[in-house]
Formats: sequence, C-alpha cells, structure tokens
Amino acid sequence: MSQEETCRFDAAQVHEQIVAILRAWGMPDESAAATATVLVDTDLSGIDSHGVSMLMLYEKLRSENRVRLDAVPRVVRDAPAFAVVDAGAGLGHPAGLHALELAIQKATVCGIGAVAVGNSHHLGALGYYVRTAAQRGLVSLMMTTTRTPVVAALGGTTPILGTNPIAFAAPRAGGGELVVDMSTSVVAMNKVKAYALSGRDLPAGWVNDALGNPVTDAALAYSLLTTGEGTLSPLGGSSPETGGHKGFGLSLMVTVLSAAFSGAALPLDDAGSDNLGHFVLVIDPASVAEGGETARYVDDLLRLMMRDEPDVILPGDPEAVARASRGQNGIPIPESLLEHLRAICGRAGTGMILTPLG
Amino acid sequence: MSQEETCRFDAAQVHEQIVAILRAWGMPDESAAATATVLVDTDLSGIDSHGVSMLMLYEKLRSENRVRLDAVPRVVRDAPAFAVVDAGAGLGHPAGLHALELAIQKATVCGIGAVAVGNSHHLGALGYYVRTAAQRGLVSLMMTTTRTPVVAALGGTTPILGTNPIAFAAPRAGGGELVVDMSTSVVAMNKVKAYALSGRDLPAGWVNDALGNPVTDAALAYSLLTTGEGTLSPLGGSSPETGGHKGFGLSLMVTVLSAAFSGAALPLDDAGSDNLGHFVLVIDPASVAEGGETARYVDDLLRLMMRDEPDVILPGDPEAVARASRGQNGIPIPESLLEHLRAICGRAGTGMILTPLG
Repeated sequence: MSQEETCRFDAAQVHEQIVAILRAWGMPDESAAATATVLVDTDLSGIDSHGVSMLMLYEKLRSENRVRLDAVPRVVRDAPAFAVVDAGAGLGHPAGLHALELAIQKATVCGIGAVAVGNSHHLGALGYYVRTAAQRGLVSLMMTTTRTPVVAALGGTTPILGTNPIAFAAPRAGGGELVVDMSTSVVAMNKVKAYALSGRDLPAGWVNDALGNPVTDAALAYSLLTTGEGTLSPLGGSSPETGGHKGFGLSLMVTVLSAAFSGAALPLDDAGSDNLGHFVLVIDPASVAEGGETARYVDDLLRLMMRDEPDVILPGDPEAVARASRGQNGIPIPESLLEHLRAICGRAGTGMILTPLG
Repeated sequence: MSQEETCRFDAAQVHEQIVAILRAWGMPDESAAATATVLVDTDLSGIDSHGVSMLMLYEKLRSENRVRLDAVPRVVRDAPAFAVVDAGAGLGHPAGLHALELAIQKATVCGIGAVAVGNSHHLGALGYYVRTAAQRGLVSLMMTTTRTPVVAALGGTTPILGTNPIAFAAPRAGGGELVVDMSTSVVAMNKVKAYALSGRDLPAGWVNDALGNPVTDAALAYSLLTTGEGTLSPLGGSSPETGGHKGFGLSLMVTVLSAAFSGAALPLDDAGSDNLGHFVLVIDPASVAEGGETARYVDDLLRLMMRDEPDVILPGDPEAVARASRGQNGIPIPESLLEHLRAICGRAGTGMILTPLG
C-alpha cells in the first residue's frame, strides 16, 4: 500500500534485536525471549500491527511508568482446574505464556484447565498462544481485554469497549491447525484506515459519529475514531437489526471472563497501569476421546468446508501462508519503522543489529 | 405482524400440556418435566420459534424414528473436570440439563467443569440453561450444533453449517444476570422472513444465491434459503472484508467444541438420528474470587454500559422484559398453532387442556 522503501529481515535476527532491547529495559532473560518469540511470530504471520512495531508503544508505557518490565507473573488463587495469575503490571506476553502453561498442566490432570490473568498489559496477537497449544495436541480458547476504548455499546454513542479479541485453535489430523483469531468489533481499526488510504466509502454501520449517525467517509471516520469523537461498531454493526447485539454480547463475555475473576480493570478505568485481563482455557482431548479422534474430526470438518468450494478461506489460512512466505523471504520492515527502532536502540543503550537480507 | 387471532395462556397450563404430550409419547416423567420447563421458559422469553411450537418438529422426528423419547442420557467418558455424555438419541433438553448439572458439580470441586454431549437432538434456546446457572451464582458458556444446513462457509456457495449458537451468562450483584444468546449466522432465518413479510430489501451480504451473488429481495431470499438454493452468511457477512471470517470461525469453533469430543455428526451427515452435539462450560467464581466479587464486576460493567446512554440495549434485556410481561399476561399462541396442538394431542391420545386466559 505504502510506497516507502521496505527491506526484509531474517526472523532470527529480529528476535535477537527485540531480546536485546527488552533486556536493556530490564526484562528478565526468559521473559524477554518469550516476548520476542510472540512478537516475531506475529510479524511472520503478517499481522504487522502487533509485531515488532509494538516496541514503540511499550517504550512509551515504560517511560510513563505504566508497565513494569521486571515483573514476574505469579499465581494468586489456585483451584484444581482454574487459577488466577497476577501479571505484576508487566507486559502481557510472559503472563500469557505462563497462564497457558498452567492451563495446560491443569488440563492434563483434569481434562480441562483455565487461567484468568489480571494486572497485565498487551500480550500480542492471541493466535500465537492457541496455535502453540494446538501444536501440542490441545484445544484452546483465549480472550483479552484491550487498552483503548473505541467500540460503542449497542445503541450507545461513546467509545467504551476495546476491540476485545477471541482466539480458538484445535489440532488437525495430518498436520496443521484450525486457528480462529478475531476482534469482537465489526472490523479492526486498521481496516478503516485501509479504506481511508484507498479512498473507498465505508459500509454504513461500521463507524458512527458522536450523535450516533453513520459516517461513510473513511478518512473522516478514521479521524473521528482516533480522537474519540466517533465509535467503531461491535461485530454485527450498530443496530440489533443487523446483529450488533451479537458482537456487543461477545465483547461483554470477553470482558467478564478476562477481568471479572482476576480483578482487572473495568473499561475506561485509567488509574496507573493498564491492568488488562486475559482468559485462557485448554482442553486435553486425550482425557475423554480415543487417541487422535478429535483431531480427525477437525480435519474432516475442514475438508468438508473445502469440498468443491475452491474459494473457501479457512480461518488461520492467510496467516499460515504469510508464515511460509516470510519464513522464506524474511520479515518486511518499512524504513519509517526502522528509524523508530534505531532511535529506541539508542535510547535503550543497545546496539542496532538489524541488517537487511541481501 | 400476523392478523390471525391470538389468545393467551397461563404458563403453568402450557407446561402441563407439554408434559402430557411428551409422556404420551413415552418420555420418562422427569425428562418430560425438564423439557417442558425449557420450552415454556423460551416462550415466556418471547422466542416463539423455539418454544411450544417445536412440538410439531418433535412429532415429525418421532414418526420418522429419528428421536428416542425414552432415552436416558449417560456419562460415557469422565475426567475430573471434563466429561462426555451420550444423549441416547433423545431430545436435547434432558441431555442438556444433565450436562449442565454435571458441569456444575465438576466446577464446584475443580473451579471449572465442562461437558460435551453427543448423539443428541434439538435442546431449545440455550439462554435458559446459562441463565439458570447464573441464578445459582455461576458463570457459564454453552454451544450446540444445529440440524439444518443453511449457512455457507466463507467464500462458499452451498449451505453447509447450521446457525450454531453460543450462549453465555454471568450473575449480576443485586439481582439479574447478563445473558448472551446468539446464533453465529449474520441474522436468524426468522429475520429474513420478517423482512419478506414487511416487504423490505435485505442488506447485501446477508443471503447469497447458488452462484454466490447477493440477493436483496427478501421474499426471494427466504424462498432460496428454504429450498437450499441459497445460503445465509456467517455473522460478519459473506466477505472477509466485512468480517465474515469471524462468524465462520465462531461457527467452526462451536462445531469442534460441541461435536469433536462427543462423536456427534459432521455437517451434512444425515444418517439416522440427528446426532447433534452440545458443549457446556461452567465456572464457579467462588473457587478463585472473594465472595461476590465477580458478580459485582459484572454489575459495575453493565452499569457502565448504560452510563448516560439511554438507548443502550443490554444482551438478554429484551427477553427479560418479555418474561415479565408474559409471566403476567400469559403466553400468546396463535390459532394456527393451537390447531396443530389439538391435532398432536389427538394423535398422541391425550387431552387438549389449554384454555385461553379470560
């Protein structure tokens, strides 16, 4: 879309660069490696908005003392199949991975395990976590509250909910996974921006102004969203007539599961750290089904969806294609982002090691 | 909408009538009472499509030997926090309630409990089950596969998925519950019918013809859906551009959780009984949170949604309003449905006891 110069970089080198920055910021080695792994995988999957570019936000949060990079997540309440983790106001990635491992342990013993995380921050794209679990033969569901209020309540006119995503994954017999990773807003903010850049009108019902009237001029809509004078609709649109109650209901479900057990923040609560909440649920199919039966069902289901239907797009497939391509050709990083990373390295007192692939 | 005569009936009498018919069909007393309770509550909640009117379908399934009304659900696999129930090819209501109670028992011990049900049939509106759990202080999530393929895969042109609903509920401090109950299709079939009856055009992206082209003539769209020559889109519409991958992904998630552990049918599998699958998950907040903390969060969250926003509609509120009104004034049953019920009673050899409220 953009005309600016974009070089490609080896994923392992991007990982090393991120670890160097996070360690310079005071993050423990293990947490830095885990966080870098999530960010690089997200870039490899083509979700550029949630990869290495997030370091700009993390630096800002750190400078405002809103995040504690030296935090170590710890279990604060523990039942046989359910626990609550306090992320210690740290980044969400180490806490999310800690919660995932704990839920996996519980699922292995009890058949199912869940963990709610509070006092956390952004944890990257959820797809990474659930896909990892699927690669280990497990079915998982994950959710998180998000930081910036941008979505209206159904029938409301002010931004009050984040894009509160849901992710789900299951292993597929013969290899691969079903991976669903979606926000509960009608579209992502980035889609509104893309419409603005290409000069297309938005469908009515995606963005409303402060009076609740639809805004179809994409550039105006994006501007209203960034200043809080407009709202993004929940999945299903701005009216119950078009199913807006569904996205609104899903967003409330994400909020309750992610935050109500773990003491995480209510929407609009802006005291100190972000205090985001996450929820992760893991099911071990081996606890109740014959070996491989569940994964075979998933494979049969997905094959059925593709039956004589060449245009069907399975959830997770665009990201798998991106991973194959970028794993081979490197991660594209535009020059403007490289500039930011150079400046971040400078301020952190660590070297900029990124060198473009030939 | 309809001009035909509609009388109102006392809920307790409707319950008694349903029990009489189900017992005459050979259903055990306890299962008959449970099924009637779900059906009556659904009518009270204003969801007429899933209440007493379902008896017509159940009679048809029974006459085709597709349902065993004398079935008793039984646990076939059991882990500490997860189990699989075989519904014995019976109606879904007794199996759904059995699974809910089992998940509640497990949640009380382990913090969380889940049950997958296979070899089942229609279990009514999911809202009843999760609301019941919320009234007992529990948070719950429920899903089911449905019988009739009507929704296309994203990018596909043939009906392959049911409307595969999701429901969620949580208790609210001070009384009441948050209840989300939604299909994963863009709208329910009934909404297309309502547009057709009122002569309004459908938004593009709700219904496509067999070539994948949008159909906005609502009467034509409804006709294509009923003959299988058209498809309903997943929530989000028929394109990834409008978020159709989200509804498609949710529908696949519902299918996997409901059917992949329990040996329930794949979509389009039409051998013998319906073999639907259900999934129910219960969390006991008391296992990890201080008493009432979770319900207070839910109440705070919902109050926040209503803050200075008089037009906000909370999920579950329209149904709660209907329950208050119909509990007072009775359940409306149109004359055409009464005719069917009279005929059903006659064929079942039981008396028609329904008498209109004065």
